[in-house]
Amino acid sequence: MRAEIIAVGTELLLGQTVNTNATYLSQGLAEMGIDVFFQTVVGDNAARIGQAIELARSRAELIVFTGGLGPTQDDLTKDALAAYLNRSIVIHEPSMDKIAALFSSRGIHMVESNRRQAHMIEGSVPIVNEAGLAVGNGISEGGSHYLLLPGPPREMKPMFDGPGKTWLRTISGESRRLFSRVLKFAGIGESSLEQALIGLIEAQSDPTIAPYAKEGEVAIRISTKALTEQEANTRLDLAEEQINAIVGKHLYAREDIPLEEAVIRLLRASGRTLSSAESCTGGLLAELVTNVPGSSGEFVGGVVTYTNLMKHKLLGIPMSQLEGSGAPGAISDSTAALMAERIRERTDSDYGISVTGVAGPSESEGKPVGLVYMGIARPGKPPVVHTFNLNGSRDIIRLRAAKSALYRLWQELVEHE
Amino acid sequence: MRAEIIAVGTELLLGQTVNTNATYLSQGLAEMGIDVFFQTVVGDNAARIGQAIELARSRAELIVFTGGLGPTQDDLTKDALAAYLNRSIVIHEPSMDKIAALFSSRGIHMVESNRRQAHMIEGSVPIVNEAGLAVGNGISEGGSHYLLLPGPPREMKPMFDGPGKTWLRTISGESRRLFSRVLKFAGIGESSLEQALIGLIEAQSDPTIAPYAKEGEVAIRISTKALTEQEANTRLDLAEEQINAIVGKHLYAREDIPLEEAVIRLLRASGRTLSSAESCTGGLLAELVTNVPGSSGEFVGGVVTYTNLMKHKLLGIPMSQLEGSGAPGAISDSTAALMAERIRERTDSDYGISVTGVAGPSESEGKPVGLVYMGIARPGKPPVVHTFNLNGSRDIIRLRAAKSALYRLWQELVEHE
Repeated sequence: MRAEIIAVGTELLLGQTVNTNATYLSQGLAEMGIDVFFQTVVGDNAARIGQAIELARSRAELIVFTGGLGPTQDDLTKDALAAYLNRSIVIHEPSMDKIAALFSSRGIHMVESNRRQAHMIEGSVPIVNEAGLAVGNGISEGGSHYLLLPGPPREMKPMFDGPGKTWLRTISGESRRLFSRVLKFAGIGESSLEQALIGLIEAQSDPTIAPYAKEGEVAIRISTKALTEQEANTRLDLAEEQINAIVGKHLYAREDIPLEEAVIRLLRASGRTLSSAESCTGGLLAELVTNVPGSSGEFVGGVVTYTNLMKHKLLGIPMSQLEGSGAPGAISDSTAALMAERIRERTDSDYGISVTGVAGPSESEGKPVGLVYMGIARPGKPPVVHTFNLNGSRDIIRLRAAKSALYRLWQELVEHE
Repeated sequence: MRAEIIAVGTELLLGQTVNTNATYLSQGLAEMGIDVFFQTVVGDNAARIGQAIELARSRAELIVFTGGLGPTQDDLTKDALAAYLNRSIVIHEPSMDKIAALFSSRGIHMVESNRRQAHMIEGSVPIVNEAGLAVGNGISEGGSHYLLLPGPPREMKPMFDGPGKTWLRTISGESRRLFSRVLKFAGIGESSLEQALIGLIEAQSDPTIAPYAKEGEVAIRISTKALTEQEANTRLDLAEEQINAIVGKHLYAREDIPLEEAVIRLLRASGRTLSSAESCTGGLLAELVTNVPGSSGEFVGGVVTYTNLMKHKLLGIPMSQLEGSGAPGAISDSTAALMAERIRERTDSDYGISVTGVAGPSESEGKPVGLVYMGIARPGKPPVVHTFNLNGSRDIIRLRAAKSALYRLWQELVEHE
């Protein structure tokens, strides 16, 4: 079944509200195996809503509306669809009773417009609203299906997930569901990943393999429609194996978690702790790691040594290492190694990780923007240093530096723990 | 001029990405006086993109596209519009050079698909992309105008705001320009701010006064259309004065800079330095401050002491302060004061700032989620501690804690420097 979403509301067209409802509905429909081909946003205007219905009706069998079910004269969705279907508006008595009771309990006089929230298109099924007053509608005619939901997300979501989905399953007769799995990659760009997998992506249609990029991370979603989870898993496992055989080196998770969470889990599994010493990332690495709930068991703490003096004061790195002619300087592999070793010692942690480099906007110590060193101090072995040449604006370089450092630590943990 | 927005990307139809681009573009177009009547989302499918163009073309004079300019075979926007307009694709040489230089500097072999990002529709104007590789296009034909922008918000936003708006002004023939000023507020919520200013907002239509919330900050945009900057400034100054008279205590900037940048500027003006000691914010405060370019002159460094042992090891706070019956504990006003004092001493900075509290998801030391203490150690006076009870998820509490701490520091600097 093909579906379209029509979000109704001038506030969306003015950019005052983000259309998170379309996202939520699309996700839910995809999970039910219903393909969404278009989303449309239209203002609170009866003629244009009618136009949007006409068009969507010509392209899809299911139209899901959100918004325009409220009490005001601007709330026109039910009226517009009733006019399009040439049906009348009736009152949903249980909703009317609920509205009347609410106003009476508050001692407020109910104005006529409040009755609008109990409106139903003649012949439709009520979609009950536990969190608010506006009743939803489900209606089928001539092979087309219409589901009307309100705009406020805290009303819309439970209505869609509960009575909405029940109604959809009745009308769709689709017994297969969509099963998806997300694979997360690090240390590889979106286009390189796609390039590596292009043969696989083009050769196969079930499961589908779709790459997508999130800030600083790359993901692949593999999806298949199946009657049972077991049937789906057999197909998804096979696709995952094929992907793993090609780019397994970069595959850090088989679910949608950030890289820092994968690192914390590896540390937890081996009972190891971590500390950090950051220069150019200025606390971002610690911030990412501590944003993983429960990370205090593995991440003990760290320092942000933004100036040479602080590298000396907080980490005890000799000034002769950092400044003066012939000194390696703060941005160097030997300083990265020292920072990692010293924070490991001072915190008594198993691993110490360091980042020092040039985030920009201008060069530093005569070294170019984007040059970043990261060090890993580790148990029973000398520290290792990796060098990166990163691109982008200051905040992108900082993010890439932190994620690249985490990727190298992840690799270290995979190989040696 | 009527406009429509077409966002291209299957990830939007699958509900994997929220369409914040449509919101941003709608807002920007509204501010320019361009009415948006429809927003459409279409997947990465050439036929359906063509169908969306055809329809939008019949309803509006301007179509703004976002998405589908990337390197992969799924990025079809330019091809689809070129086919619709019956024009060929040409290479934008400066973009091609930039892409080639990037790959060569990284020592990576450039794959053929990367050339796609330098594609231009024949006869179009390039919309330069400083933050990424995909060049945008502006093209006019037969009274219809098409603006093509990429999907990643950090590339799309500056392209739209800079060269995109310049191109739009050229094609719209509007001789008045929109002049806006952003006022930034801290320590007050969006609804409280709006409540305080509601009389002013409702009483006046030029300049318009529009509040909007950003993550952890609140802003007001005052806008007026004028032929000259001088004419605009006269009107904007007056509106600004009226606002300042009501909520000046919270007004930290008369331009769109984050709170941490206002703090850095105050420190710079008085020649003072800052250090930080963070517990529950886990490095976020340092990360925010060091994300201000040039902040290394004022922010010397800090520590992330996530565990009690680290508060002891890195800051020398007695364990008896942190643990044991009758101890104040890590989450207490006295620990916040000690953390601020100790980091100030250890770094020899003028100000030391500390944050300790419960970010959640569960309580700590029997203290509730959202309880946060922040301390400020300062020259020539005893430290001061502020207590907050914050709401929200773990990451929202962390952000609010960091921003609240920065607000108190800002107040301290305004009053005493």
